[in-house]
This record gives sequence, C-alpha cells and structure tokens, in this order.
Amino acid sequence: MTASALASSPRQCGCRAQVTVSNRGGTLYDADMTNDELFAGTAVKNWKLVVDRLNTTTATLSDEAMQKEVSPGRNRVYYLIGHLTAVHDRMFPLLGLGERLHPELDEQFLVKPDRTVPETVAAADLRKAFVEVNTQLTAAIEALPPADWLKRHAAVSDEDFAKEPLRNRIAVLQSRTAHASFHEGQIRLTRER
Amino acid sequence: MTASALASSPRQCGCRAQVTVSNRGGTLYDADMTNDELFAGTAVKNWKLVVDRLNTTTATLSDEAMQKEVSPGRNRVYYLIGHLTAVHDRMFPLLGLGERLHPELDEQFLVKPDRTVPETVAAADLRKAFVEVNTQLTAAIEALPPADWLKRHAAVSDEDFAKEPLRNRIAVLQSRTAHASFHEGQIRLTRER
Repeated sequence: MTASALASSPRQCGCRAQVTVSNRGGTLYDADMTNDELFAGTAVKNWKLVVDRLNTTTATLSDEAMQKEVSPGRNRVYYLIGHLTAVHDRMFPLLGLGERLHPELDEQFLVKPDRTVPETVAAADLRKAFVEVNTQLTAAIEALPPADWLKRHAAVSDEDFAKEPLRNRIAVLQSRTAHASFHEGQIRLTRER
Repeated sequence: MTASALASSPRQCGCRAQVTVSNRGGTLYDADMTNDELFAGTAVKNWKLVVDRLNTTTATLSDEAMQKEVSPGRNRVYYLIGHLTAVHDRMFPLLGLGERLHPELDEQFLVKPDRTVPETVAAADLRKAFVEVNTQLTAAIEALPPADWLKRHAAVSDEDFAKEPLRNRIAVLQSRTAHASFHEGQIRLTRER
C-alpha cells in the first residue's frame, strides 16, 4: 500500500479528523529537537488537536443544542461540557501547573449525575468557562519543559512513583486526551447532518 | 487539594476508567529506565488501556447487541467494531510493523457508510478479527525499540519529515488511541444500565 493510500482513505464514521495523520496548524519544527522535545511535543500536539476541536465545536453550540441528549436517556451535551471543564480544571494541580479556575463545577458535573441537582451554571457561562480553562491549561502545558513530563503527578506518592515511574505527568496528559476524545465522540452524535 | 481527593472523585459520565490515574495491570518498571523508554512506555500503556477495554467490551457483545445503533439513525456497534478493526489493521504498514491481516474490511467499514453494502462479515467473525488484530498489533507495538517511535511513519515522505519531525510513529499511536476512545464513548452508550 502506498503512503498516499494510507493517508487518504475516505471515512464515514464522523471521525475524519481523527484518523488523518495531519499536521494541522502547519507548525515547522527545529530539526535539532532532542528526543525529549520530540516525545513531549508529539503528546502536546495530540492534546491540542482534540481540545481545539472541542473548543471549536463548543463555541458554536446554541443553548438549545446543549440541552440535547447524546442518546435517549443519556447525558446532555450541557453536562458533558461541564464535566470536561471540571476534569480539565483539575489538571492544573494534578500536573503542578497552578490553582484551579472553577472548583465550583465539581459538585454538579463530577459528583452528581446529570439532571439530579438544580443547574447552577447558565449554558453560555459554561461554554465560556470551558474555553477559558482549556486555553489557560494548554498554555501552561506548552510551557512545561519536556523532561518535566516524566516527573510524578500530584496523585501518586514519591514511594509509589519510585516503583512505578510510568505514573508520570505525561500519562495524565495522554489519559485526559483519550477522555476528551471519548466524550467528543458522544457530543458529535448530536450534530445536525 | 490532596492527592487522594484528586485521584478518587466519583464520576457519573460512564467514563470512570478514563479519568482514573491508574496503573492497571500493576506492572512494576525498572527504576533505571531511560527517558526514551519512559516516554514510549507511557504512550504504549495508554494505548493498551483503551484497546484492552475495547477488547473486553467486544468479547461480551452478543450478535444482537452489535445491531444496536449508538444513537437513533447513527452507526451500529457492528459497523464501529469493523471500522476500528480496519483502522487498527492499517497501523501495521503505517508503523512499519508488517503486513495487514484483514484488508478485505476496508470497503465495508472505511469506504462505505453503515448499511449501504451487503454485509460480508458475520458479527462473530468480526469480533474475532477485532481481537486478533488488536492482539497482534499490540504485541508488535510493545516490541518496537523506544527510539524507533520517533522515526517517520509510512504516510509521510522523507522530505516532509525533515521539516516536520512530529509526524512520527508515536503521533500515529497517540492519534489512534484518541480515535479508539472516540468510538468507545459511542459504543458505551448502547450498554444496559
């Protein structure tokens, strides 16, 4: 199979952007990058691809579209946007990148299921918080020196980390990238065709 | 916030496994691992977490459960399992890990949308192919020397790779991990509660 055939097959699953090996953004990189820079840079780029796509989708959602369930009886888009905002907000202390911006979201969007507590946040404010958290978090992620990604995250002790060095910060980044993509696949189901 | 609070918050979105910073599998690692080994090992571990979860889910699906749509009018689980099998099968040549096992799946599960061609594969055979591809692919992924992850993948030319070194093999692995998680989020919606 040729390189172009590998890169260009049509896809019908709503995930086009995901299986394209793209260089969206078109950044050119220094040919003298170290291995640490290449490994960290690739993981950060994958995070940005997923989060930028979610930011773009979220910015265009109407209040009404946020009330849609991703499948009958399942979470509303409103809940998933709040959930992702809270999970990403918790990455600040988990990665040693600073204080959280919106700890008040945890009760409604992490602790409780959808539609079980009075809504404390308007849809427009939630969209704003989502982009705010992602923008500030991504800036801090991009500023982290490459080798620091191999340090322990805040939810593992020094003792455990000595035995399990893969419980590092970049494991959190990659786990959260997969998590964001998990819910992106669900949110995508509500889009008009 | 304490480490245990960060690690143990309850979640109600069906994504519990995804936001836990876990060391599922419990492997202990050599404390003398190089940075290349740590970076590559973390990405491979994240791939395995997502794919192992999908393998487990798929193994328990009945033929009837595979006929369910993830949301009304959207893809069936049957199609998404075939789609993921084809996408993962294409990773063998893309990563330089060998020949594909099931190129015959592309027409039905990559080129054409769901329910537009006669079904050529029985649900039971598709479940088998899915686990077969993932098992052999993951074994090849685990055997790749860490620094080889920074080499170019087969869909980028030498010339382009010289300018854009983040178009490497580990970018493919991370992109496909996010892609698998994207569809896992959709398949999860069909589970009984």
